[in-house]
This record gives sequence, C-alpha cells and structure tokens, in this order.
Amino acid sequence: MHLDKEALDAHESRWRAQLINAVAGFKPVNLIGTIDDQGRTNLAIITSVVHLGANPPLLGMVIRPSPKGVERHTLNNILDTGAFSVNAVTEDMVPQAHQTSARYSGETSEFEATGLTPRWIDGRREPFVAESPLQIGLSLLEHLPLKHNGTHFIIGNIDCIDIPDNAVADDGTVDLGALRLVTACGLDTYHSVGSGTRFAYAKPDQPPRPI
Amino acid sequence: MHLDKEALDAHESRWRAQLINAVAGFKPVNLIGTIDDQGRTNLAIITSVVHLGANPPLLGMVIRPSPKGVERHTLNNILDTGAFSVNAVTEDMVPQAHQTSARYSGETSEFEATGLTPRWIDGRREPFVAESPLQIGLSLLEHLPLKHNGTHFIIGNIDCIDIPDNAVADDGTVDLGALRLVTACGLDTYHSVGSGTRFAYAKPDQPPRPI
Repeated sequence: MHLDKEALDAHESRWRAQLINAVAGFKPVNLIGTIDDQGRTNLAIITSVVHLGANPPLLGMVIRPSPKGVERHTLNNILDTGAFSVNAVTEDMVPQAHQTSARYSGETSEFEATGLTPRWIDGRREPFVAESPLQIGLSLLEHLPLKHNGTHFIIGNIDCIDIPDNAVADDGTVDLGALRLVTACGLDTYHSVGSGTRFAYAKPDQPPRPI
Repeated sequence: MHLDKEALDAHESRWRAQLINAVAGFKPVNLIGTIDDQGRTNLAIITSVVHLGANPPLLGMVIRPSPKGVERHTLNNILDTGAFSVNAVTEDMVPQAHQTSARYSGETSEFEATGLTPRWIDGRREPFVAESPLQIGLSLLEHLPLKHNGTHFIIGNIDCIDIPDNAVADDGTVDLGALRLVTACGLDTYHSVGSGTRFAYAKPDQPPRPI
C-alpha cells in the first residue's frame, strides 16, 4: 500500500501510532535506571537509545513524556541527578521489562513491582539492573527539548560499562547475540535475534565480503 | 569486565569504536536516499534512525560526517534539497547495503556502484530503493548540530510510506519479521531476526501478558 499524508491522516490515531512506531525498523531494548532526590528508584523501558560517537563515548535517547505528565519520572530524575543507567534486555527479561511501561505512581519503584534487582556501584547515584548482562553508567551531557512534538533528546557521556568477557572479541567487537539480547518492533513486540554475519570494511574497488 | 573511563581510554581507538558502537544494542538498518542539486543520486547505510512521534509522524537520525569530510554527501543533499528517503534493508540486500559505506567520490552514485535500483515517486525529489519492501519519503523539519562531537541530528516529517499490505495488521501493527528485515550490531555485523512475541498494554495491577 502507498500511504500519503492524506491516507495517514485518515486513519485513527492508535492505528497510526502502531504503524509509525514500527516503520523505522528494529529497535534496541534497554531499561533506564534512575533515582530521585528522595532516593526513590525508577526503571523505564526505552527503545530509542542511539549511538552518537565513540570518542568521547556518547549515547543519545529520546524520551516522550505522556500527555498527562505522569511518566516524566525518568526525565525529571536525569535532570535532577545528572545520572542514569542503560541496561540491555535479554529474552528472559522481556516480561519484566515490558511491565515497567505500566503507569506506576511515583511511590512505587518499578524494581519492586517487577522483581528486577537494583545493583549499586560505588561512587555512582543511579541504580543498575543486576539481571542485565550489559550495564552502562552515564552522566547527563546535554538536554535538547524538541520543539515539534514535546519530546526530549538526552545526550549522555558513558562513564562505565559492565559486559561479560566472553562477549567481547580481541578487536573490541561485541557479540550481542551471545548475550541473547532482544530487539523490538513497534510499541509492544519483542523479537529474538539470530546469528550475525560480519562484513569487511567496504572499499570502492572491492565487492562486499563477509568475514 | 568492568570498564571505567580510565580502562576505556587505555584501549586504542579502533577497539573502543567497535565496543562503543555495539553497547546501545541492536540497531535498525536503513538506506538513506538523496539527490544533489546537479541531479546526482546518493545512497548511504545508516543505523541511527529513531522514532520521534506519530502525530505528527516524525523520524530522527544521527549523521556522523567523517573527520576528512568526504562522507558529507547525505547531509549536504538533505540540507540542500530538504528531502530524503528511508528504505528498510532485508536479508537479501545486506551485501549491497553494506557496500554503500565505501568511500565513493561524489561522481559515483552508490545506486550504480551496488546495482540497487532507484525508484522515483511523482512530486518527490529524493530517490527510493526499489528493492526495499518498506520505503519512506520525508521532508527535513529540523537540523540540530550536536556540539560535543560534530555529529548532526536530523528530524524529518514522514510524507509517504510504501509497505506491503500483508505486513500491516488491521490495528496498524507491522510485522517487520515477515519483511525479513535485518538488525545491526556494531559497525559491520548484520543479524536476521526471529519471530516476535507481542505483549498486552501494561497495567500496574496486572502481570505481563503475551497476546
């Protein structure tokens, strides 16, 4: 089907939300760990983390506060404390990770509600997810409110990474498949991932070559 | 392993680039189609497209010009023409899609170099990739240069979407797995994706429930 602006607008908003959330392709699935000034922890599933650069090591992510303002905990905590964790989600963690998207009040920590275990690292404020094999600690570097739809683009500096030795090859490449991480499609679907094929650095005078 | 800032800095830059490119998780794989003012087409593989919102329908993407400035074709073309296409990459398209990352000069179109076929839509300037089952036409909405590392965040408004009827369910959900789209890890590895599990809308007083 070919959908132009008119055809898209003709569909009701939930249909459009499902479609538009899926068309960018498969997304990374991460849990964002934060804490507020009263020491209350928060955990939120986010599928918009994006690589920004390796030197300095930066990640970005999009946060979309709900229209009613009830899901601003993650954003507020990051702005208040300047720290957050990014924790990769494995196949086993999917039900609990998805459950963090329920609209718990500020009094309820998603750690308690889902049974995921907070892990603390000396010298850092934000909670990590003990069950996750890939945990990243970040400091807030920049906050860009996007004027067109009220979303926020957060840029974080990577301060530390926990990852199993056997997932990192001698040249620094990572086998996310070995960690059994999932990928997401749209608002609510999680996919397991098959084995990967690596390609040699592409050159104009050579054909593509798997290695 | 636990890597703090010191441990990360101690590794050489290529090792660090491989690791940092992978830790955000699995990434979407898309080909960005553009054209310059002289009518020369360009195609670039990008793994940083991110969903920004459904109403209005917006996508974002990160463009990282190379240090030597030779890979700015995509960015320049978008800024000059205000238009670009996002084309999903399937398992069959991976070798050609990866090959677009070779540093072709401005005289060589990646369409010609890789054998992918440009498709034109009446009234739109940007070329689409005929081989892709999911083609999106966008207009440039905002250009945010990120001061910390010279990358650029591009926000585009979705003007049109081409997608096979049978990949879209009655409620607007999309089965990207049925399209055999791939997901990427790090700089150069492409993974096929298994079937998905969809979860019901999460509620605080109900356990997570696959549907």
